Amino acid sequence: MSGGKERLIYLPLGGAGEVGMNAYVYGYGKPGKERLILVDIGVTFPDMDSTPGVDLIFPDMTWLIKNKDRLEAIFITHGHEDHVGGIGHFWAQLGAPVYARRFTAALAVRKMDEQGVDVNNMHAVGPWPEMVEAGPLSVSFLPVSHSIPESSGLVIDSPAGRVVHTGDFKLDGNPVVGEAFSPALWNEVAEPGVIALACDSTNIMVPHPGRSEATLPPAIAKFIKDSTGMVVATTFASNVARVKTLAEAGHAAGRSVCLLGRAMKRMVAVGVDTGVLEDFPHTVTPEEATGIPRENLLLIVTGSQGERRAASAQLARGKFLGLSMKEGDTFLFSSKTIPGNERGVLRIVNAFSEMGVDVVDDSSGLYHVSGHANRPDLEAMHDLMRPKMLIPMHGEHRMLRAHANVGEAKGIPSVVAVNGSMVDLTGDRPEIVEHVETGRTYLDGSVKIGAMDGVVRDRIRVALNGQVFVTLIMDENDEPLGEPWAELVGLPETGRSRAPLVELIEAAADSFLGRAEDKVLTDDDKIEEGLRRVVRQVSVEEIGKKPEVKVVISRLS
Amino acid sequence: MSGGKERLIYLPLGGAGEVGMNAYVYGYGKPGKERLILVDIGVTFPDMDSTPGVDLIFPDMTWLIKNKDRLEAIFITHGHEDHVGGIGHFWAQLGAPVYARRFTAALAVRKMDEQGVDVNNMHAVGPWPEMVEAGPLSVSFLPVSHSIPESSGLVIDSPAGRVVHTGDFKLDGNPVVGEAFSPALWNEVAEPGVIALACDSTNIMVPHPGRSEATLPPAIAKFIKDSTGMVVATTFASNVARVKTLAEAGHAAGRSVCLLGRAMKRMVAVGVDTGVLEDFPHTVTPEEATGIPRENLLLIVTGSQGERRAASAQLARGKFLGLSMKEGDTFLFSSKTIPGNERGVLRIVNAFSEMGVDVVDDSSGLYHVSGHANRPDLEAMHDLMRPKMLIPMHGEHRMLRAHANVGEAKGIPSVVAVNGSMVDLTGDRPEIVEHVETGRTYLDGSVKIGAMDGVVRDRIRVALNGQVFVTLIMDENDEPLGEPWAELVGLPETGRSRAPLVELIEAAADSFLGRAEDKVLTDDDKIEEGLRRVVRQVSVEEIGKKPEVKVVISRLS
Repeated sequence: MSGGKERLIYLPLGGAGEVGMNAYVYGYGKPGKERLILVDIGVTFPDMDSTPGVDLIFPDMTWLIKNKDRLEAIFITHGHEDHVGGIGHFWAQLGAPVYARRFTAALAVRKMDEQGVDVNNMHAVGPWPEMVEAGPLSVSFLPVSHSIPESSGLVIDSPAGRVVHTGDFKLDGNPVVGEAFSPALWNEVAEPGVIALACDSTNIMVPHPGRSEATLPPAIAKFIKDSTGMVVATTFASNVARVKTLAEAGHAAGRSVCLLGRAMKRMVAVGVDTGVLEDFPHTVTPEEATGIPRENLLLIVTGSQGERRAASAQLARGKFLGLSMKEGDTFLFSSKTIPGNERGVLRIVNAFSEMGVDVVDDSSGLYHVSGHANRPDLEAMHDLMRPKMLIPMHGEHRMLRAHANVGEAKGIPSVVAVNGSMVDLTGDRPEIVEHVETGRTYLDGSVKIGAMDGVVRDRIRVALNGQVFVTLIMDENDEPLGEPWAELVGLPETGRSRAPLVELIEAAADSFLGRAEDKVLTDDDKIEEGLRRVVRQVSVEEIGKKPEVKVVISRLS
Repeated sequence: MSGGKERLIYLPLGGAGEVGMNAYVYGYGKPGKERLILVDIGVTFPDMDSTPGVDLIFPDMTWLIKNKDRLEAIFITHGHEDHVGGIGHFWAQLGAPVYARRFTAALAVRKMDEQGVDVNNMHAVGPWPEMVEAGPLSVSFLPVSHSIPESSGLVIDSPAGRVVHTGDFKLDGNPVVGEAFSPALWNEVAEPGVIALACDSTNIMVPHPGRSEATLPPAIAKFIKDSTGMVVATTFASNVARVKTLAEAGHAAGRSVCLLGRAMKRMVAVGVDTGVLEDFPHTVTPEEATGIPRENLLLIVTGSQGERRAASAQLARGKFLGLSMKEGDTFLFSSKTIPGNERGVLRIVNAFSEMGVDVVDDSSGLYHVSGHANRPDLEAMHDLMRPKMLIPMHGEHRMLRAHANVGEAKGIPSVVAVNGSMVDLTGDRPEIVEHVETGRTYLDGSVKIGAMDGVVRDRIRVALNGQVFVTLIMDENDEPLGEPWAELVGLPETGRSRAPLVELIEAAADSFLGRAEDKVLTDDDKIEEGLRRVVRQVSVEEIGKKPEVKVVISRLS
């Protein structure tokens, strides 16, 4: 491992094979001794299907924690949760200086502080050509347009050459807030030659060129001007350009603007504090809003994905902070529903419909544009950077594969490198040289648990099958003392025979114990196995389900 | 209630406020004495978010079961699960003759037989102008185009006039299999005057006219002809027109056709048996298929919605009946993903991507058309039928509302009548005269449970919070015998302090009991309350979660 020539490696720990929880490692040095940097440390969000009760999902950082003595620095490309959300939770285990641009740093610092991390480990740095030295690597933040201010690609220089990591991006010459995409600047970076372009793949399936954020303000302004009752609009809070567009449209239509939802207020505050958001219209508090005629109000709220606790869902359930919607009001989704969130979004749409509220979504294309580069834009990026090789990242497998196919078709050696694939960038084409064990780590309450620990699996099993607890006391002579007790969780009270299921289970358990031989009665494992069998048998007969069974035996001895 | 003039009523018990589990009651007679018919009795499918472990969801039929002596007949418009899926499960409680056209009846009979219902209660009847007498109502099946053969609207004649219930429909002059939509026939029905049109609302949000099924065969044929490796295509099995188009395209491309998945084989068999499906190409068995070169094979498989147990998902996981996909093969979704199923579909798409399989979906518009009428087609139906009033049905609330708005805008009195709204159709406009309690009934294993019974709620709680089960023995003197035991389900083993959570919980429970006064120790409720409190307290401190707590106290006395 430790012999051989120096090499430049790329190792995704998260984000390559999914959209979410980004974490990309780069390193330079002799094999196994590479000095490392981490680019982004994000989260992804749980769902009831696979992760009930989980609070957040992180990449499995075990490999990097084991190699923390080799970690020179952490770089955060931008402030979206899937890029910065894990910084507070993992910093203590990684212990390297963190670098980000000012707006991103302001968001990250808060996350670090919440987890008790010394915020002095965060270093706000300026854009290219400012460079951060990280062992054998030098890293610079290259401004790019995306749906949050101060997004950056990274220029990573090594003795083996230059890598460009795009981060999340779109080609927007007029992003309303923040820096426009500058082909000249990126071309300047490409000039000396780029050995590898690690490139966003999110929208590789979208065949038409993306549209600029600047195409939206006229349509949004008209929409709000033409609305009669109260207007409520939602978008991602971090899309401060959109929030500003909405607020300005409300203001222009003579409406008072009220921000609802903690994230919405925080993002605007950070935007103003860090100077990225200028001239944001005056806003009123929810208390003030309650005193303003509804036709003079615009609420800008969190919850574009139908999240249960966000402001949109609260309004869909009734009153929120004294404000409520009613017939004649309008709700605007200035956002796209992320696949998997449809049910939650439709739940609130139908709730608004019941109130008589008109709901308008992005299906017209007038009120939302994506923050990611579509296929033609990705190709334009390839052409601009002229890399020796292309590493598709930030995407589900199908996206990485489609992106690699696009690269190969243009003669750029490409690779589908999913989480855990260590890619050597030093040769003529990307070569997967090692597989590192990766996976997911769950934040469950306040505890980090492994996705494979079985904790969540057990919860899913109970959710699907219900649970029976059987309690049994064995006396000093290894005989049952009284009858076994059963407790049912999540099971119907009665089934086929109409007799209470709990009684049938207790009778069957009792009968089993009455028939059981001494070698069973003296062996807890055998009792448990037997009771589990009879409980399941009765359950299948009665209710057609095989519940999870736990047996607790107390021996008086 | 029993006084007053005869009236004609419409009462949706399911399907009005959702897409799924359709069940519409019509009646004629004096208020509270109306003689009734039921139109359709469908199911909807559970999801992990709200109905974990549930097998099927039915409308709550309590009202109709209570009034079964007034029920004259049951009519099934077509063979989709959301229209016929409940017939076997509820027939015994309803006990009325069932009428359907031949293909639908063949599917329904199977469902009745599976549930032990005498299939002689099913009567296969011919289309309009054949009439079925049902008390004061006469009912006729009016052929219409949809995505399954022999779909029908119903002409419901009463002394108060004619109602037309569209059923699910689209305006397709060439549906490939089955009857074309005939404007002349529907116009003939409208001639004497229609007092109410109960109309499908599924696609009211789609602004452009729908396309014919007949637009697909050329594109599908070209697609399959141009593919190189094995081609696997999925669609709803019940869309036998599509299945035939796919099979013919495969055949034309010189491929052997193999049907995979029970529903796929059954639907084609029923189609052939009932004569609706003619000249279906020869198929091979999976065993035969394993001996055929992959470039000469077309598999037509179930699982267009990513269902875990369907053929598509099985292939995504590896070998299925000896067949497996590999690099160079192609998978075609000749289907649309129903909102809420995105995660399951993307799971298999990414699994195929990992195998190197190219996946093609309907995003091009070339390989799928909807079975429901879009807004302009719905308006064409309104114009054709010229009803006195419009009752939007078969849709989520937002769809019913949008459809009612379209009707009102054209001067047709309309109403948003959700499940449980009894509408009097006798007057000048639809009037909601009564609200009947409705809801959902779950099939859980083999048992029907009410959605509000708390059974599923308890499962969801455990899935979100985990469960602690505490066992305690109290001796004859009301003193704890030994220490309490705890069992944990779905909770991390350790938390903040790194000590085993189960031990910390047991210690806290023991300490609580040691401190407890006699008036607590003699009162099971007080013990339980106290133990629940301390268990949750320890859990919050250690793992940041409040688990569900069950306490079992065994008293030796």
